[in-house]
Amino acid sequence: MDLTPTILDLARKLTSPALIVDLGEVRRRYEAVRRALPGVAVYYAVKANPHPAVAGTLRELGCGFEVSSVAELELALAAGAGGPGIISGNPVKTPDFVSRAHAAGVRGFALDSPAEVAKLAKGASGTEVYARVTVDNSGSEWPLSRKYGVGPVEAVELLANARDAGLTPAGVTFHVGSQCVRAESWLDALGVCREVFERASGRGLDLTALNLGGGLPVRHTRPIPDLDAVGSAVMAYLREQFRPDLRVSVEPGRALVGEAAILVTTVIGVAERASERWVYVDAGVFNALMEATGGIRYEIVAERPGARAPCVLAGPSCDSVDVISSDALLPDVRVGDRLYVLNAGAYTLSYASSFNGFGPPEVVLLP
Amino acid sequence: MDLTPTILDLARKLTSPALIVDLGEVRRRYEAVRRALPGVAVYYAVKANPHPAVAGTLRELGCGFEVSSVAELELALAAGAGGPGIISGNPVKTPDFVSRAHAAGVRGFALDSPAEVAKLAKGASGTEVYARVTVDNSGSEWPLSRKYGVGPVEAVELLANARDAGLTPAGVTFHVGSQCVRAESWLDALGVCREVFERASGRGLDLTALNLGGGLPVRHTRPIPDLDAVGSAVMAYLREQFRPDLRVSVEPGRALVGEAAILVTTVIGVAERASERWVYVDAGVFNALMEATGGIRYEIVAERPGARAPCVLAGPSCDSVDVISSDALLPDVRVGDRLYVLNAGAYTLSYASSFNGFGPPEVVLLP
Repeated sequence: MDLTPTILDLARKLTSPALIVDLGEVRRRYEAVRRALPGVAVYYAVKANPHPAVAGTLRELGCGFEVSSVAELELALAAGAGGPGIISGNPVKTPDFVSRAHAAGVRGFALDSPAEVAKLAKGASGTEVYARVTVDNSGSEWPLSRKYGVGPVEAVELLANARDAGLTPAGVTFHVGSQCVRAESWLDALGVCREVFERASGRGLDLTALNLGGGLPVRHTRPIPDLDAVGSAVMAYLREQFRPDLRVSVEPGRALVGEAAILVTTVIGVAERASERWVYVDAGVFNALMEATGGIRYEIVAERPGARAPCVLAGPSCDSVDVISSDALLPDVRVGDRLYVLNAGAYTLSYASSFNGFGPPEVVLLP
Repeated sequence: MDLTPTILDLARKLTSPALIVDLGEVRRRYEAVRRALPGVAVYYAVKANPHPAVAGTLRELGCGFEVSSVAELELALAAGAGGPGIISGNPVKTPDFVSRAHAAGVRGFALDSPAEVAKLAKGASGTEVYARVTVDNSGSEWPLSRKYGVGPVEAVELLANARDAGLTPAGVTFHVGSQCVRAESWLDALGVCREVFERASGRGLDLTALNLGGGLPVRHTRPIPDLDAVGSAVMAYLREQFRPDLRVSVEPGRALVGEAAILVTTVIGVAERASERWVYVDAGVFNALMEATGGIRYEIVAERPGARAPCVLAGPSCDSVDVISSDALLPDVRVGDRLYVLNAGAYTLSYASSFNGFGPPEVVLLP
């Protein structure tokens, strides 16, 4: 989503901070993912941006939803999704969520531990399950691997146990890490999945489904691989190495919404400290830009013209953790100047709290 | 606040996660701070726990409030505080907050930059201002220093500029860092303040007030200095080194509420991963325990008996950042077991978001 004169004109009139979400761009990103991964079922990971209008827009296009909690399930159902249009990729779920999702008709749950097999067998008997395998997360700017996942041997063991417990072992799921900028990561991960399929077959398990997880990146300040190139390579690998009737799904979050919003924020202070320039704005890590603490580097544009120079960009709260960037490049901005954080549609609203009384940005929707 | 049989009995009946807040303990902590720092005006830093009942309880005892934003100002006013019972320690404020606070009668704003002098001169003409000086934060478990503060020379320059701009230079403020466990940090900081007072006097500025900031620690898993010992040392230093009619204030947040609550959480998953035991609970860093990411180590008690062994304790969200501790000590807990996070009253509700659909703990108040 570009900072066009029209957007700029709108942004100037808004109370700061605000998040301008372009639902048209959400639609375009969905179509782009569909084109890049033909025949693959798309489930939007609602955690990326749980705004109901985003969910509703995607639902109208036939998109499914990936949910991890009762609140996310209710969001997907409210958007009009039926149970079969919803999956859960969280390998460790609350028992309450499992039974509610099962009752709503959700089919397809990830798991990666014997305790989860037992939980699903009890609360979602007969449901399809996917073993979450550990894959290389080194290409990701927000790696996820250590917390979840098992190796191929254990994955097959879990799927066999799941079968014995009355569940339906469907296949494998993985996550290359959020904002993954290494295209080869998907192929490496598919290699791990292929090993699981082969081992499962040796155990008499007929796996039919593969979930590609999320991780498709959006543009910030570093180069990212082309979506179509990732898609072609994945599709070619699937054709060559897996059964032709494989059911394939994907759970993009960031890729559907990241580029569909611009965050409008305002300079509330400037200071020189120990030969560093500090710029303080009204949208910080706690009310909008949490991912900055994990290494996501946003492109930030000032309305004021002039040569850009390094500065520390900090949020409004009294907390020293509330620093967006230690080396932002901004002109000589003043209190009251507007700044625009581009491609800020993912993981901004979702992580936002009202710490120190600074609330999340107000959402402004463009149709 | 101890996990007594009565509390345990109550906790068992609650929906998890829940935060049991003992308002009686808030009162006792307030009285303890008053005793440790006799004659010092206490302003509760509401960001530590913005629950209205906490603010109301402290107000009844005559406590003032330290606020940084419009929402915090409104909270303090709703609790019954008048403007003179409110100060603002945030050195970089939004212009909107400044004018609203000034209109509400708030007297006393921190500053540490020429831009803030200009902002306060415009929006809060005549008000008392405090220069925020940089002090050693090495004793703190959540250091704050780099983002704010100036040295003594610049502090005096700012106070002189403030006077010239129609403001009232009152004195100096500092922050030793949140959860400061080094008692000497306050005395070192007072040494910096004393230098500002002396230099200011040389510039014809008659400083009358000193704000001790916050940072008073609460009990977690590491030793902390005794509140009374810190208080006596501070009071002795003030008597010896400052004018006898000095107006002294303090802005405790954590110290008033940290020990006044217990977080009730429930095990939702267990797993063995690469020879590590992982325990997953329904209160994680995004909906309750954000400070765990910054190094605060909570004391966590399981209801289940048995020998305790190391584990990684993780929150419910799909995010790998959502890890509370890499080396918690817990017995062989199972899904459904209750865990109790002690002294969890500060910076739990305030940082909480509903990321991934996992909302903040429900608050249960004990009178």
